[in-house]
Amino acid sequence: MNLEALREATRAQMPEKRWTHTLGVVDTALELTSRFGGDPAKAELAALLHDYAKAWPILRQEQVIREQGLPKELLDYGKELWHAHVGAWVVRHEHGIEDEEVLNAIRYHTSGRENMTHLEKIVCLADYIEPGRDYPGVHKIRQLAEHNLDEALTAGLDSTIGLLLERGECIFPLTVLARNDLIRRRKQKE
Amino acid sequence: MNLEALREATRAQMPEKRWTHTLGVVDTALELTSRFGGDPAKAELAALLHDYAKAWPILRQEQVIREQGLPKELLDYGKELWHAHVGAWVVRHEHGIEDEEVLNAIRYHTSGRENMTHLEKIVCLADYIEPGRDYPGVHKIRQLAEHNLDEALTAGLDSTIGLLLERGECIFPLTVLARNDLIRRRKQKE
Repeated sequence: MNLEALREATRAQMPEKRWTHTLGVVDTALELTSRFGGDPAKAELAALLHDYAKAWPILRQEQVIREQGLPKELLDYGKELWHAHVGAWVVRHEHGIEDEEVLNAIRYHTSGRENMTHLEKIVCLADYIEPGRDYPGVHKIRQLAEHNLDEALTAGLDSTIGLLLERGECIFPLTVLARNDLIRRRKQKE
Repeated sequence: MNLEALREATRAQMPEKRWTHTLGVVDTALELTSRFGGDPAKAELAALLHDYAKAWPILRQEQVIREQGLPKELLDYGKELWHAHVGAWVVRHEHGIEDEEVLNAIRYHTSGRENMTHLEKIVCLADYIEPGRDYPGVHKIRQLAEHNLDEALTAGLDSTIGLLLERGECIFPLTVLARNDLIRRRKQKE
């Protein structure tokens, strides 16, 4: 399937607002790639597909997790995490995307994880700062993203954890592990 | 060894300020026990011993962790977590404290953990709110502790995680799991 057909298929999964967000993430991921390096074609593809299943009915997402052997522990945490793993599964099985680097960038774009690849960082950060995003702290994350990918991503994960603290909601352990890992690597460099 | 001798042995491990804190935790743990139930003798013993190794030189703490087979992952996280596990080991081996409930209350008083026992909660919360404590948010935690053990403890863990976020330091995963567990149990009751 060529990129144009994938774009149309992706657009068909979501309302206009989510599509606008997706295009913002694509642009931002390409911008980050030109700033910090990486393969722009992979960044574009992963960014395009990152929210493929985001607007799917939650029961359909749950069904994919249960029936296709995706990590069951997802079901114990916020539903906003589910679409990332579900999306990676769907684009692989419905659109033949086999590039594990791209699939992992989709899979971990919401939670992060330890040992994130450059591509995973690009897509995760682009999702935090695409032009349509507006939340407390986004300005600071955008500023950091001007010159430091890891610091900007850490600030993004900080904002997620801080929000869950404020809301009294569970924190996905992988997000904490992702942040710990980024902090440790920075300290090792110092 | 009787309680009076244990008190003197404990006092000998720490400077005056830490001993004053210890007495505050003992009083608060007893107060929480009279409010929320539990064995006051165990609460007093665990509170008395909770910071047994806190003032020990950090290299001595590290040595106990390495040589006595305590969880190695502690070494990857903040040193302020070490004394809890080291203290539990020392009071067992030097003072013959064999009560696993008491030992676990010492062991997990800083980090918390999933499935905390009533005694673990009492000691952990008492450590957050003893009268000598003064940090942003302690007033709110004290207020919650007037009527709800779990909510007060959750607020205490929130303050720990929030502080580590602010400071850009790693967050011990067990603390997040402890908080998630408390939140889930509360939601199940609702």
